Amino acid sequence: MAANESPKKEGKAIRCRAAVARKAGEPLVIEEVMVAAPKAHEVRIRIICTSLCHSDITFWKLKDPPGYFPRILGHESIGVVESVGEDVDEVTEGDTVIPSFMADCGECVDCKSKKSNQCSNFPFKVSPLMHRDETSRFMDLNGETLYHFLYISSFSEYTVVDVTHVVKIDPAVPPNRACLLSCGVSTGVGAAWRTANVEAGSTVAIFGLGAIGLAVAEGARLCGASRIIGVDVNPDKFEIGKIFGVTDFVNSASCKDKSVSEVIKEMTGGGADYCFECVGLASLVHEAFACCRLGWGKTVVLGVDKPGTQLSFSSFEILLSGKTITGSLFGGLKAKHDIPILIKRYMDKELQLDEFVTHEVSFEEINKAFDLLIEGKSLRCVIWMNR
Amino acid sequence: MAANESPKKEGKAIRCRAAVARKAGEPLVIEEVMVAAPKAHEVRIRIICTSLCHSDITFWKLKDPPGYFPRILGHESIGVVESVGEDVDEVTEGDTVIPSFMADCGECVDCKSKKSNQCSNFPFKVSPLMHRDETSRFMDLNGETLYHFLYISSFSEYTVVDVTHVVKIDPAVPPNRACLLSCGVSTGVGAAWRTANVEAGSTVAIFGLGAIGLAVAEGARLCGASRIIGVDVNPDKFEIGKIFGVTDFVNSASCKDKSVSEVIKEMTGGGADYCFECVGLASLVHEAFACCRLGWGKTVVLGVDKPGTQLSFSSFEILLSGKTITGSLFGGLKAKHDIPILIKRYMDKELQLDEFVTHEVSFEEINKAFDLLIEGKSLRCVIWMNR
Ligand SMILES: [Zn+2]
Ligand SMILES: [Zn+2]
Ligand SMILES: [Zn+2]
Ligand SMILES: [Zn+2]
Repeated sequence: MAANESPKKEGKAIRCRAAVARKAGEPLVIEEVMVAAPKAHEVRIRIICTSLCHSDITFWKLKDPPGYFPRILGHESIGVVESVGEDVDEVTEGDTVIPSFMADCGECVDCKSKKSNQCSNFPFKVSPLMHRDETSRFMDLNGETLYHFLYISSFSEYTVVDVTHVVKIDPAVPPNRACLLSCGVSTGVGAAWRTANVEAGSTVAIFGLGAIGLAVAEGARLCGASRIIGVDVNPDKFEIGKIFGVTDFVNSASCKDKSVSEVIKEMTGGGADYCFECVGLASLVHEAFACCRLGWGKTVVLGVDKPGTQLSFSSFEILLSGKTITGSLFGGLKAKHDIPILIKRYMDKELQLDEFVTHEVSFEEINKAFDLLIEGKSLRCVIWMNR
Repeated sequence: MAANESPKKEGKAIRCRAAVARKAGEPLVIEEVMVAAPKAHEVRIRIICTSLCHSDITFWKLKDPPGYFPRILGHESIGVVESVGEDVDEVTEGDTVIPSFMADCGECVDCKSKKSNQCSNFPFKVSPLMHRDETSRFMDLNGETLYHFLYISSFSEYTVVDVTHVVKIDPAVPPNRACLLSCGVSTGVGAAWRTANVEAGSTVAIFGLGAIGLAVAEGARLCGASRIIGVDVNPDKFEIGKIFGVTDFVNSASCKDKSVSEVIKEMTGGGADYCFECVGLASLVHEAFACCRLGWGKTVVLGVDKPGTQLSFSSFEILLSGKTITGSLFGGLKAKHDIPILIKRYMDKELQLDEFVTHEVSFEEINKAFDLLIEGKSLRCVIWMNR
């Protein structure tokens, strides 16, 4: 350290390891990078562990914008505040935090409203830069800029996140459970809890029993749904589904004479009260809508199909049915308000998180986490930064 | 009357006048017809007056099924019970009633639920016959069967209606106002009140200021909406709209540089809380969805486009927006429960109905009512059966 440097840690860049996505679809490269000091309203976080979500893979594969390279991916994580920039009062050095890709400024009409989780001061975009000044806090050792991902970039020992994206949490929670609440699991649980507001005693159908679909089941179970029907092409999913409250299973691959929606309408005497599409196929959104109960059925769209995919419904179907179609980002959860609630429910042994973690690897093995998720072998693989 | 006939009026067919649609699109013919006695669970009603709705015109034009001829159209009306069949306790001779095209059996899971207005014992279909035995109660003097319309067929001095479709009302209400509540006006008011459940202080955009759109405005006004934006190609609609609470007007024909949704998003600082499509054009449903506020905007589909029309939305748009699309039949109203409430609100001078009645004609002039509505000159034309 040079003599003229400030003793204040927060003024300096940190040199640390990050897993850099250098080219679309190519293995991440663990290398040393420079992480700039947090500017005003920003927080620098030492990541404890991070988990891999499908969106990381989606953007890792994207050659063209919104795919950007070189980039530090990762957006499901937990860490400890290392330093804060000016005008940050909400958290301080040493606080345990979950960085959230959804901003919550607390000041705009949306953040103040109970009805929305989409901050209008810092709206969700897939920008590769920081929210306020649209620059990067990452650089490689050659001085090249490294792009951010979803305002988080957790595949780095240290990262810089805007304070609007930081959720302070109970440090007693096991980090390899809490990190799941940054994205996928919260999205599923929230879709049942906040977006659909599943009523106790109701019937739920879930298309796709990956991590998100299972999290929807878990959310529906917590809401007291009496019947939770899982739909998947893989019958093995029923076993894991049962842990999260799935009571019935429909193997969509073996529905030959009848469509899945016909099967579910028969099973439920008219249709499910709530249907969730978690795969991201337009055709499944139609099946979900079709098997929703006439009069009050609600279809929640959670899966993302290819950009540009159109969902089409007959105008008669919508008009005459009294059915509703809705979508939500992050399950309609308000990050700063709802993530701590979910953590408490986990600590109180209500919310199940353990069963989502099928694998844990060290940071050096991060590409293995990619392989496991791509091959459908993992629900969530936790990547420990230093173990 | 032959000596061996029963003196009980309810056992006999009644000979009376009806306006018969003999061929698609051709003027109705007023002729004498036979109206059979009500069977079990049925009620024979002397119609006082009836009004003309767009659906009458739609089915009058339809050459092929669900267009059927010869047929007695009409489904917005008020009358007095002339006689009842067996097992009818709900109403008795002399009761003032509104026949409703939506059944309400009071016994099925839907009728018992607050969430649905779609009776599952007697589901809405566009059948040309009675609900229970799928036969007709009408015959012309040559013995030819005349078809029913929407279980009502009010273009006749007498008609037979299933008791599940009969709403007993306060006889003090002026009949030429009450009849409007059988369909169009209730649909619009209900869409704001029941389907969307418009919150006080919110912003509403209405695409199409015909009778339904104006009724949506009236419903939104009653719910306490603070801003009601009417959209129409005809700027004259603003004046009549003001009566029903329309506060702002967008002339969609003169939106050149910007789309209507852009204009409304600017006017409202982000979008309307509730958007209603009342025209029946898929393109307008998209505009309505587009100008709904991110995070919580609700789009209600009220207009019926041509059968087979598809509404398509980008899956990203739905997923990421947190917006909702919904439809409803009869504005989500439960006929037997909600029509009497609306009548009371009219009698209490809260709900405005007078301004919807732009024309009144005698039964003999019924074809004039068709011309007026087709030419866009009337909102509602009341047809008096005997005046
Ligand atoms: Zn905000
Ligand atoms: Zn994610
Ligand atoms: Zn019923
Ligand atoms: Zn009608």
